[in-house]
Amino acid sequence: MKAKTYKDLSPSPRTIMTPGPVEVDPRVLRAMSFPILGQFDPEFTALMNETMGMLRELFMTDNEWAFPVDGTSRSGIEAVLVGLIEPGDKVLVPVYGRFGHLLTEIAKRCGAEVVTLEKEWGYVFELAELEDAIRQHRPKLVAMVHGETSTGRMQPLEGVGQVCREVDALLVVDAVATIGGIELATDRLLIDAVIGGTQKCLSVPAGMAPITYNKRAEAKLQARKKIERGLLLADGEDDPLLRPIQSNYLDLSQLQDYWSPARLNHHTEATSMLYALREGLRLVLEEGLEARFARHREHEAALVAGLEAMGLRQYGDPSCKMTVVTCIEIPAGIDGESVRAMLLDHFGIEIASSFGPLKGKIWRIGTMGYSCSKRNVLLTLGALEAALLRHGHRLEAGRGLQAAMDSYKI
Amino acid sequence: MKAKTYKDLSPSPRTIMTPGPVEVDPRVLRAMSFPILGQFDPEFTALMNETMGMLRELFMTDNEWAFPVDGTSRSGIEAVLVGLIEPGDKVLVPVYGRFGHLLTEIAKRCGAEVVTLEKEWGYVFELAELEDAIRQHRPKLVAMVHGETSTGRMQPLEGVGQVCREVDALLVVDAVATIGGIELATDRLLIDAVIGGTQKCLSVPAGMAPITYNKRAEAKLQARKKIERGLLLADGEDDPLLRPIQSNYLDLSQLQDYWSPARLNHHTEATSMLYALREGLRLVLEEGLEARFARHREHEAALVAGLEAMGLRQYGDPSCKMTVVTCIEIPAGIDGESVRAMLLDHFGIEIASSFGPLKGKIWRIGTMGYSCSKRNVLLTLGALEAALLRHGHRLEAGRGLQAAMDSYKI
Repeated sequence: MKAKTYKDLSPSPRTIMTPGPVEVDPRVLRAMSFPILGQFDPEFTALMNETMGMLRELFMTDNEWAFPVDGTSRSGIEAVLVGLIEPGDKVLVPVYGRFGHLLTEIAKRCGAEVVTLEKEWGYVFELAELEDAIRQHRPKLVAMVHGETSTGRMQPLEGVGQVCREVDALLVVDAVATIGGIELATDRLLIDAVIGGTQKCLSVPAGMAPITYNKRAEAKLQARKKIERGLLLADGEDDPLLRPIQSNYLDLSQLQDYWSPARLNHHTEATSMLYALREGLRLVLEEGLEARFARHREHEAALVAGLEAMGLRQYGDPSCKMTVVTCIEIPAGIDGESVRAMLLDHFGIEIASSFGPLKGKIWRIGTMGYSCSKRNVLLTLGALEAALLRHGHRLEAGRGLQAAMDSYKI
Repeated sequence: MKAKTYKDLSPSPRTIMTPGPVEVDPRVLRAMSFPILGQFDPEFTALMNETMGMLRELFMTDNEWAFPVDGTSRSGIEAVLVGLIEPGDKVLVPVYGRFGHLLTEIAKRCGAEVVTLEKEWGYVFELAELEDAIRQHRPKLVAMVHGETSTGRMQPLEGVGQVCREVDALLVVDAVATIGGIELATDRLLIDAVIGGTQKCLSVPAGMAPITYNKRAEAKLQARKKIERGLLLADGEDDPLLRPIQSNYLDLSQLQDYWSPARLNHHTEATSMLYALREGLRLVLEEGLEARFARHREHEAALVAGLEAMGLRQYGDPSCKMTVVTCIEIPAGIDGESVRAMLLDHFGIEIASSFGPLKGKIWRIGTMGYSCSKRNVLLTLGALEAALLRHGHRLEAGRGLQAAMDSYKI
């Protein structure tokens, strides 16, 4: 058999305006092209330590532990939940979109008794609703999403940490979609563990999940670690009520030892992804968190002005809109997937559809990280107008871009 | 507080002669520097499909399923074991080094009743020993390591698959250290699931775990998937004997749907790592598997000739030596870590120590993938000789390199 030949990689240029993955900053791409170092090379462990420091700044925390899990965002979510949930633990998950359901699904696989609190998609919870549910159910852990990309809504977290402390529950926040684009003050909000994402507001490729957790969470991990060691010294039988962390790969007590000065061998750190994460964090810190959050608000404002001037209607409760994702209703009679395909195939611009009940109903436009730029917003508005006109939608040509340019004071 | 500044990345050049991670081929580094595509961009899903085809060639299989798990090698091991082991299943693990212990550890966390068969480090099992144990214990699954980097030994697998079929056990092989460097004929050997590594003989950075599995393994996964759906439709209580796969992130039944034409959303594929894996596989297939295996044997021969001419003694049973790792005893009176530090600090060359009972007793020199070259072998021998002389070890200068050059017919 003649060997099949495979062509040289040559991806087409793309303007990626989805809620992730988004365009990667060229400096991050460059960082990945550097030769690797061995995992225990002192130069590499120094980079690991430096990255931990940068993650602390990103998460606005003084936590000792802030490091990436080597996997995509949900590996970080699972690492946190599988470490902090023991089989039989009651876990409360307030759900207001798809990724709340994911937290529920993962918590169940960890053996949790999950109680969900559901909110109609497009809205978020009032603090009082959360307080009542937490006081009523007294869960061991509350897991919730900060920014829900499926609906473009953001859950305010002020006050949630206090009531979790009141009932001695751990508070875990999925900030995959917000970290680096919208403020998440881990310590001030009394959050016990946070999971961030790389491929959204950090503009680093998918493949790492930065996390942080405090002493309260660490105590839980350490207690389970002791149990495991005891089991290993005993006859090896599992006590179903005192189970060790059920994953080896995602065992934070082991990952923590690997990231500690002890450097206990676990996995082989994903060298090039660590280079990428470090460079992405360096870009965030050079820009400054406040300036970065303001940049995301500036481009959101221009995008929204443009879309509204085109006569498109926003989806969901405007009072809890996420800065970094804008959801718009697909106009009646328009095939949303056909418009998306026209944008991708002819303009090289990608926008997103949504999931479950919103599939075919809304488009989602991300303004995240490196993709969150004046150029991208203007190009997207122009292309969308053209694609809508080509699909027979009636709108007044030119108004969208003029409104966005007004917003930018061009 | 003045913001801390972080320097531009500038890793020192390294000749990495460990059993992984090893030097990354520059073409792979270049592939990672390409801009990303969205995860459902048809151009990207085409690359995913192409990579699956390349992995089938690498694994020498006609299996439908061959794709990477987004995590380091042990994430692939855990994905296979957590999918194929149900709590209470009897699992047999023949252990002849550290990574056999890892299989045991992961299988236990999956709830297996693990039976181990232990062999003194430095040796491997006879086929008859494995056959007897499999027939005696009649496990549901046998998990074993193909190439054990901790001892530099390789377990012959001829005949093991047949006896597993005889007792209806699944055979899972950890080929993390051998894939792409030493032949592993998945189909011919009747192996049901194989896990490969990227950062060793493929010369791709750590961060992905290519796996393959056949219809026997898939049937097990699908059966558990049905159970899970049933549980979700019922009252949600867990039956401890009929548990769904306990991980979401590493659930192969979901990963398989993501890699299938259905493209059911799961994680966000690690784009740049997929580019890297594809390029690494392209390099393997351009070279040809047979030629690549022969190249690894050629450089091993020169390295061994050089080390022996320097009077260094090999560790372990020579009849089962792995081509791609050479273990040598640290001469009496020599501080192995001091020699390693001298090589790294002054020559920019990294060799490895070992684990557990072999810590401080042996050095391990890898000849894997891109690091497996004439240049690297010659530079390493010259540097090691100089470092040993500097540490007061008595040897006849010049002989090591001359022997290696003889081996190369220079």
